[in-house]
Amino acid sequence: MQNVKVIIWGLGAMGSGMAEMLLGKKGVDIVGVVGRPDKEGKSMYDFLSIKRGNLPDVIIGSPEAVITEKAADVVLLCTDSFTAKAFERIQFILEKNINCITSAEEMSYPKAKEPELAKKIDEIARANGVSVLGTGINPGLIMDLLVITMTGCCKEVEHITSRRINSLSPFGPAVMEEQGIGITPESFRANVKTGELSGHVGFSESISMIADAIGWKLNDIKQSMEPIVTSVDRKSPYGFAKAGNVAGCAMKGYGYVDGDMKIEMDHPQQIEPEQVGVKTGDYVIIRGTPNINMINSPEVPGGIGTIAMCVNMIPQIINARPGLQTMITLPVPRAIMGDMRDMISEEAKIVK
Amino acid sequence: MQNVKVIIWGLGAMGSGMAEMLLGKKGVDIVGVVGRPDKEGKSMYDFLSIKRGNLPDVIIGSPEAVITEKAADVVLLCTDSFTAKAFERIQFILEKNINCITSAEEMSYPKAKEPELAKKIDEIARANGVSVLGTGINPGLIMDLLVITMTGCCKEVEHITSRRINSLSPFGPAVMEEQGIGITPESFRANVKTGELSGHVGFSESISMIADAIGWKLNDIKQSMEPIVTSVDRKSPYGFAKAGNVAGCAMKGYGYVDGDMKIEMDHPQQIEPEQVGVKTGDYVIIRGTPNINMINSPEVPGGIGTIAMCVNMIPQIINARPGLQTMITLPVPRAIMGDMRDMISEEAKIVK
Repeated sequence: MQNVKVIIWGLGAMGSGMAEMLLGKKGVDIVGVVGRPDKEGKSMYDFLSIKRGNLPDVIIGSPEAVITEKAADVVLLCTDSFTAKAFERIQFILEKNINCITSAEEMSYPKAKEPELAKKIDEIARANGVSVLGTGINPGLIMDLLVITMTGCCKEVEHITSRRINSLSPFGPAVMEEQGIGITPESFRANVKTGELSGHVGFSESISMIADAIGWKLNDIKQSMEPIVTSVDRKSPYGFAKAGNVAGCAMKGYGYVDGDMKIEMDHPQQIEPEQVGVKTGDYVIIRGTPNINMINSPEVPGGIGTIAMCVNMIPQIINARPGLQTMITLPVPRAIMGDMRDMISEEAKIVK
Repeated sequence: MQNVKVIIWGLGAMGSGMAEMLLGKKGVDIVGVVGRPDKEGKSMYDFLSIKRGNLPDVIIGSPEAVITEKAADVVLLCTDSFTAKAFERIQFILEKNINCITSAEEMSYPKAKEPELAKKIDEIARANGVSVLGTGINPGLIMDLLVITMTGCCKEVEHITSRRINSLSPFGPAVMEEQGIGITPESFRANVKTGELSGHVGFSESISMIADAIGWKLNDIKQSMEPIVTSVDRKSPYGFAKAGNVAGCAMKGYGYVDGDMKIEMDHPQQIEPEQVGVKTGDYVIIRGTPNINMINSPEVPGGIGTIAMCVNMIPQIINARPGLQTMITLPVPRAIMGDMRDMISEEAKIVK
């Protein structure tokens, strides 16, 4: 069997991290990279500052030049958060008869916000005999798949709380801006109103995924977003919040079944939480038979986690039946410590 | 779609618990029960002391009388721990064109101890267009699937520790005997030598499942078994250990890759751990990128957990492709809080 062939579309922090991870794995080749026009023509290795060794060079190119009919087994698409924005790119990939994994948060469960597009994507994928998945650390694992898996040992589930208290310190300027780090609480509230501050994208997706998985029929989803105002100056590599200003963004989400709030999401994100004694961690709390009271502390870091999830799901999306897949329709993610080809079924491989 | 039709084979604590759980669920019927000859002819409802209401009676019968060609969508087989012992029963079920879920621990990954039988079972299942799965709380979730799922957010994995510290207090006389509760440390060691004490069955299966999932090639598996000697008298509903005698069984397991111990299983089980300040819990500790440090405390109780896992996997095994399946080839387990039929694909249903 030929090595698994991967194209990466988008060379931001996520796409670059996936490229680096893949270069350390066996049985898989990066055969193409799509970057913004200003990056086109450069070597991926130079761009990543990684020694090429004996490997053939990979030149960053346009989608049309790089993503051609069956040019790879999978494209990792890391350009967007929203399904509507990613849609045309996904269509472009699928119509070249290539599977697609995207880090776009809404694509983890596109039915939640974009049922029409989800249907279209499913149809396009089936028509072209390939499959597509949105995943990442969250949505994708921590606040949904992990919760669902733990309901698997429950006879009954009455209420679910999923909590992720994480540090934003490792993130770059884009995230600092999206989360309102350093601005005043007044600006924060004003920017929430205008929709300028996105905060975490994924509550509707995680809540819908959990509810659909266990058979709860949602009749409402609500969410709120509050500034985390710091009492001390906090400084991270790319962020600074003066005392009295915003050091983070506390989001809450609620899923209602028959008018009862059954699913609660609690996701405060901030820079330098340790400075004020906040212990980071991922929590799965299920009230049911039995109760579940699970903590992973410190939290799985968002960046590494998303990079790993997208790469580690490559075998599953190649092996999958054609169509739109989600984390609850595929076998569990797993690290790839051996030859990636050992995880791929021959008949499902695109580049034979 | 007709309700999902289930037959239960074996009315011990597990089978009885599954029957009770299923009677509380929507879209599913128990259409037959196989019990030991002394139970034959009795009503399942009388046996379980559950009111029948308007439901048709279910009379406990022999395998031949109850399990006939396509009589159900799935048989829950709860009679054995070992693949060799369960084999003929599994064959009997599959040859009646019915899917099978078994709580037999070795069947969670039969390839580990019985590669020949695993191959045969896979062939029989395929030949009959049905599928078969072994599952439970452990093996099945806590010390394997949950660990594997958490490696899914790791770029690299260097070492895995899976620890389950649980209470045996809820268990009955059979488990007290299997684990050596109340005997002297000398008898315990003697009975380990003769193989009379089985302790936990599942380390080879869990270790092999993890290694295969992430692509580590095992070259050895070792395990050890030591008495937990109590310093105080301990009494549980079905067990008693005098100070100086055995209150539990501490098992350890080790998986070696290229001579290095990469997977460590630590599973001390005892009655009344609270009495001596032992905090029970399930632990997933991964040394890798990133590290994972997850605790569920108290532990998922073994009995309820196994009952729930077997029942909750019913939709997955009906929907699965024909053959021998494992927890790493199927989508994740999940609670069933709605109508079970909503989770079943029409074309996969056996009783149309």
